[in-house]
Amino acid sequence: MDTAQEARELHKKLRGKTEVVLKQDIQTKADLALVYTPGVGVVSADIGVDVEKVWEYTGRGNMVAVISDGSAVLGLGDLGPEAALPVMEGKCALFKRFANINAVPLVIDAHEVDDIVRVVKALAPSFGAINLEDISAPRCFEIEERLKAELSIPVMHDDQHGTAIIVLAGLINAARVVGKELSTLRVVVNGVGAAGVATMRLLTQAGVKSLIAVDSTGIVSVKRADLTAEKKKLVDDHIVLGDLSGTLDDALAGADVFIGVSKGNILTASHIQKMNPGAIIFGLANPVPEIMPDVALNAGAAIVATGRSDFPNQINNVLTYPGVFRGALDGRLPRITDAMKIAAARALASLVEQPTAELIIPDVFDERVVPTVAAAVRGA
Amino acid sequence: MDTAQEARELHKKLRGKTEVVLKQDIQTKADLALVYTPGVGVVSADIGVDVEKVWEYTGRGNMVAVISDGSAVLGLGDLGPEAALPVMEGKCALFKRFANINAVPLVIDAHEVDDIVRVVKALAPSFGAINLEDISAPRCFEIEERLKAELSIPVMHDDQHGTAIIVLAGLINAARVVGKELSTLRVVVNGVGAAGVATMRLLTQAGVKSLIAVDSTGIVSVKRADLTAEKKKLVDDHIVLGDLSGTLDDALAGADVFIGVSKGNILTASHIQKMNPGAIIFGLANPVPEIMPDVALNAGAAIVATGRSDFPNQINNVLTYPGVFRGALDGRLPRITDAMKIAAARALASLVEQPTAELIIPDVFDERVVPTVAAAVRGA
Repeated sequence: MDTAQEARELHKKLRGKTEVVLKQDIQTKADLALVYTPGVGVVSADIGVDVEKVWEYTGRGNMVAVISDGSAVLGLGDLGPEAALPVMEGKCALFKRFANINAVPLVIDAHEVDDIVRVVKALAPSFGAINLEDISAPRCFEIEERLKAELSIPVMHDDQHGTAIIVLAGLINAARVVGKELSTLRVVVNGVGAAGVATMRLLTQAGVKSLIAVDSTGIVSVKRADLTAEKKKLVDDHIVLGDLSGTLDDALAGADVFIGVSKGNILTASHIQKMNPGAIIFGLANPVPEIMPDVALNAGAAIVATGRSDFPNQINNVLTYPGVFRGALDGRLPRITDAMKIAAARALASLVEQPTAELIIPDVFDERVVPTVAAAVRGA
Repeated sequence: MDTAQEARELHKKLRGKTEVVLKQDIQTKADLALVYTPGVGVVSADIGVDVEKVWEYTGRGNMVAVISDGSAVLGLGDLGPEAALPVMEGKCALFKRFANINAVPLVIDAHEVDDIVRVVKALAPSFGAINLEDISAPRCFEIEERLKAELSIPVMHDDQHGTAIIVLAGLINAARVVGKELSTLRVVVNGVGAAGVATMRLLTQAGVKSLIAVDSTGIVSVKRADLTAEKKKLVDDHIVLGDLSGTLDDALAGADVFIGVSKGNILTASHIQKMNPGAIIFGLANPVPEIMPDVALNAGAAIVATGRSDFPNQINNVLTYPGVFRGALDGRLPRITDAMKIAAARALASLVEQPTAELIIPDVFDERVVPTVAAAVRGA
C-alpha cells in the first residue's frame, strides 16, 4: 500500500484524530447536580461577578483553537474549510501529543478579512490562545495583526512564526558548524509568502543584517512597481536589501545561505556554485524540496536541511508551536512577542550540544524540546 | 461542605470537565507523516474535490458545537460568555457521557442577532450539528430560525426544544395516569420565554387543543397591546386561546394541567383548588419550583413533576438532547423536525411501562433512553 492509500485508510478508520473524554465520570444524580445544574450555577455566578475566575474554574487556560479558513491548505491552495479539517485535526493531535494542550479544530466558512477577524474575536472567550493556520497571504498578515491588537490572549499564525522560529534555530546551529556569525551572513529567502515574510522579520530581529528576498518575478526591490503592500513594507522597513535587482541567480552570487519557502525543484547545482564556500541550503518546500540534498551536497553545499523526515535536518514546526503555546498558556501571556520567538529558537538550537552538518535541529520526539521552549518563552 | 462550596471545589480541581485525547498514539515519524503532513495532504485534496468526503475522513460526523452568548445563563440572566463556559462544559460532558458525542463548548462574544448568526454559520463546517444554549428570548427564536433555514446541518436550541420534548413525554404519561386524553386537556403554561413558547408549539403539534399562556402581566390575549412579536404570533397562529383575559388565577379555573417555566413560589394551594380534579402540576423553575410538591399534593394535585432530582418525576432535558443529537448525527439528518421531537417524546414516555403518579418519566441513567430516542428521531 502506498503512503497516499495508507493515509486514506487511516483517516477512514479513525474519523477524527482526537476525541473528547470526561475528566471525571458521571455516575450518580449527585455527580450530575455538581457538573451541571444546579451546582454549576454558583460557579457561573462567581465568574459573572469576576470574569478572571474563568481561568480558575474552567478548562479555558489549556484550550487552544486551531483555526483555518481553508484558503491555503498545506501547499495545495484554496480548497475550502472542509478540506482543511483533516489538517487542523492533525495539528490538534500534535498539540496534545507534544504539549498536553486541548486543541479544537475549527475550520470556518468566512472569507473576507473583516469576517474572519470578527469570527475569531467572537470565539476568544472559550480559549486560552488562538493558533491560525493555512490562511493565505497577504490576508494572513492583516488578520493576525488585527487579532493581536484586539485580543488579550495570544494569537499566532503558525505558518508564519512556527516556521520562522525553527528556521532561526537551524540557522544558529548551521552558522556555528560553518564557523560564521549571523550578523555577517548574506541570506537569500526565496518565497515571500507567510513563512518567508515572518522568517525575514525574525532573522532581522535576531541579528541578520544582509537579507535578499526573491519572489517569482525576481529580487524584491525599490525598483519594482509591482510589489504588494507586504513586500513593499519589507523594503521600507529595511528588512531586505531593497536596492538590488535581478533574478534568483543574481541574488545567490556571494550568498552564504539559501532559504526556500516556495516550491520544489527551483534550485540547481549551478546556483549553489555561485554561493560563498560553506553554503547553507534550507529547501523547505514540501513534499519536493527546492533541491534534493544529494544534488546540493555534490554541488558544494556544506549543510542541507529540508522539511522532510527522510533526510537529515528536518525543519519541522512541530518543534516550535507545542512549546510556544505551552509556555504562553502556563504564563498566561497576553501575546507572543519577537523576543519570545528568538528565545525559543535559541533554546531549541542549544538542545543540540554538538551541531554537525547532519545535526543542526533536535529530533521531534526529543522530550526536552517542549519544556525547554516553553521555559524560554515564559522567561523572555 | 455545602453544595455551592462542593461545586466550586470540583470546578477548581477539574478545570474543565472534558479533555481532548488522541484516538491513536503518535510514536514514530511514520505516524507523524500519516496524521499530519505529508500524508494528510491526499485526504485534504480528496475533500477539496468532493466535499462530502469530509464525513468519511474526519470526526465532523460526531462533533457537536455547544454554543452560547451567555445572555441567559441558567436562570441567572445575562452574565456574559465567560460565565456561561462552565455550563457549556457541563453540557459537553453530558453529551459524551450519555451519547458518546464529541462536543465542544463555544461561548461567543457576539450580541446582535446578525452577529451571532454570522459566527455560528461560519463555524458550521467543523460540526455535524449545533446545540444552541442559554440565549435569551426573543433573540433565540430568530437566531434558531435563521440558522435552521441557512444551514444544512441540524441546529437546535435546547432550552426550547429539549424542554418541550421532555414536557410532552411527561404529559403523555401523566394524562394516562389520570385517565385523560391530550386532546381534551386544558393546559396553562406560565412563562412565555424560550421553553414556554416551544413547549406550547410542540404540545399543539402533538394534539393539545386548549392552551392558555400566562406571562408576568397575565393571560396572553388579543386584548393586550403589549405583546412581543413572539407572543402575538402564539395568538395569531391559534396556539393559545387568545380571546381570554385575566390573571394566572383566572387561567387556572377549570384547567387540567399547569406547566410552570417561570420562577419559583408563584403557585399556591388555592390556585390548585380551582383546577379540575386530577390536576397535573409541572413546576419546572430551578432550583425553587413554582410550588413545592408536598404543598401541591396536599392541595389536591394528582401528579407533580419538577426539575429537581430530589423529588419524583424529574423533568430533565438530559433525557432528550443526547438521544436527539445521536439520532440526527447517525442519520445525517439535515434538520430536527417537529415530527422527530414528537416521536422522541412518545418513545421516552413508552419507556415507563406502568406510569404512576410518582413515575411518569424514565430515570436519567436508564441505558435504554438514548438508543430509544435516537431510533425514534431517525424513524420519524
